[in-house]
Amino acid sequence: MNIAVLGTGAMGCLFGSYLSRRNDVVLIGHNKEKQEKLDRSGIVIREQDGSECRYFPHAVSDCSGLPVMDLVLVFVRVMDTCEALESNRSLIGPDTFLLTLQNGAGHEERLLQYADKEHVVIGSTKHGSCVLEPGKIFHSGTDKTSIGLLSGEAGISRIAEELSCCGFPCEVSGSIQRQIWDKLFVNTAASSLTAVLQVPLGFIYEDINAHALMENLVREAVTVANAEDIGVFEERDVREAVEHVIQNGKEGIPSICTHLKTGQKTEVDYISGYVIRRAKAHGIAVPYHEAVVAMIHAMENRNCQDGNFIKDKKR
Amino acid sequence: MNIAVLGTGAMGCLFGSYLSRRNDVVLIGHNKEKQEKLDRSGIVIREQDGSECRYFPHAVSDCSGLPVMDLVLVFVRVMDTCEALESNRSLIGPDTFLLTLQNGAGHEERLLQYADKEHVVIGSTKHGSCVLEPGKIFHSGTDKTSIGLLSGEAGISRIAEELSCCGFPCEVSGSIQRQIWDKLFVNTAASSLTAVLQVPLGFIYEDINAHALMENLVREAVTVANAEDIGVFEERDVREAVEHVIQNGKEGIPSICTHLKTGQKTEVDYISGYVIRRAKAHGIAVPYHEAVVAMIHAMENRNCQDGNFIKDKKR
Repeated sequence: MNIAVLGTGAMGCLFGSYLSRRNDVVLIGHNKEKQEKLDRSGIVIREQDGSECRYFPHAVSDCSGLPVMDLVLVFVRVMDTCEALESNRSLIGPDTFLLTLQNGAGHEERLLQYADKEHVVIGSTKHGSCVLEPGKIFHSGTDKTSIGLLSGEAGISRIAEELSCCGFPCEVSGSIQRQIWDKLFVNTAASSLTAVLQVPLGFIYEDINAHALMENLVREAVTVANAEDIGVFEERDVREAVEHVIQNGKEGIPSICTHLKTGQKTEVDYISGYVIRRAKAHGIAVPYHEAVVAMIHAMENRNCQDGNFIKDKKR
Repeated sequence: MNIAVLGTGAMGCLFGSYLSRRNDVVLIGHNKEKQEKLDRSGIVIREQDGSECRYFPHAVSDCSGLPVMDLVLVFVRVMDTCEALESNRSLIGPDTFLLTLQNGAGHEERLLQYADKEHVVIGSTKHGSCVLEPGKIFHSGTDKTSIGLLSGEAGISRIAEELSCCGFPCEVSGSIQRQIWDKLFVNTAASSLTAVLQVPLGFIYEDINAHALMENLVREAVTVANAEDIGVFEERDVREAVEHVIQNGKEGIPSICTHLKTGQKTEVDYISGYVIRRAKAHGIAVPYHEAVVAMIHAMENRNCQDGNFIKDKKR
């Protein structure tokens, strides 16, 4: 397959590298210098067992001259999605699939501006990664990836098969929105709190106050999910699943926590903020979510007095 | 008057010093060395105009040998109130007035364990102070002080007069609980947020997200206050009053913000936590208050992993 990966963060590099085992992959980023270096020197993936392997997907900063793709995998930060798709529009033909495995939910809103429902693939992956140094990625988590089409089934099994063959065991799910919510529950009820409190995940389980906040966030999110016509979630099951994740990743620092700490804009609007938008659509009150999102935005603005986020700072 | 001041923080030192102009004042603290130094070297009060004056109230770390007082002024941190009153019980006779001008509300619950309703005086002051160095206090804010008895009026005008004569213009209020709520609104809706966000007061006015949080906290607190049978508060009036305070004290760092920053236990349970307790008594939901209090407690525990607050840390 001809595959373009938009975004050369840790996840883009990981998926681009693995997929290059069997496909023509081009990694597209906006930083010319960085892309030339990736193209020349390749990407090293370090596995959890300490082994390392170097991959050489093609890497460019400009899509001109590239053919229409079979698959465009979107791994830019959520707020950059439309800009990335817009500037790589020439890669998207009538038969091109757009696939997002980005954090959060509601990404189909953006992808549908560039492809029809039969070609927008949404999903969720339990693979994780982080950048060790430029061109060197640590690969954590090797669990399941699930994908699903917004409409129909045609062509998607080929994508799942290719992902599986390249190292991302992948299933086509008939209830992909449920699986996206499963991941969303963890991110909206626990990861968001690690950002506000600047603590590792385990703290949310151990501290009685943080745990109570998590429970309230789970309760609100489940109420919203249950209004979404994707089947029923039991609050208790969801809470236990969230507890399971945070107990098994005690030392984990979610990306939203790191982004806030390092003065970057977080993706909270596409995680907890998505829950708030769906709550509003259903007329459900979610004050704990409102409080958490407002606090994270206030902290972003506090951290960034140099004006990058100034647009929403002043009243 | 024979006056004992319990607590030798900035406010205890300020009130003890000024009151010593016309009264026999003894400052009681638990640190023997610090008390001996205060007793020997006195307390310097620096005013906003830069002028300084040294006062010599008596200072001790043990109340044995002291007579029964006319007035015991409680200025320890709220969580230390009962302990301080207990160990100075010999100063409290049947005619002794107990006066609290501590931050927060609900302090009468504690004072009533040591005196009857006709001798418990609650109040609110707009005077402020901070410690510049041991024995040296900066005096900020010179506005009104209001006091009121829980029951009756006998004897209280003499206390108000003495406060006024010593530099704290004081009125006896027939609606002291309203004035305590007026101050509580600022602390529960704005000061608490400066702690969570670690910002000066002005940020709560300027940042659109922090401002929205403040508005929600005001709305909740006004709903609770209006259930308290102390007359009606208009939400809009309260919000404007809070805005007025935070605009006029833009650079101000409330004590709760400092306590959290420096790893101390905050008084949030007697400020926002009091609003929650009253809300529960009236069956009112206050999720924004619940979120803020849980976050501040979680942050206290995060800041204090050495075990001081460990009692409520682990689930």
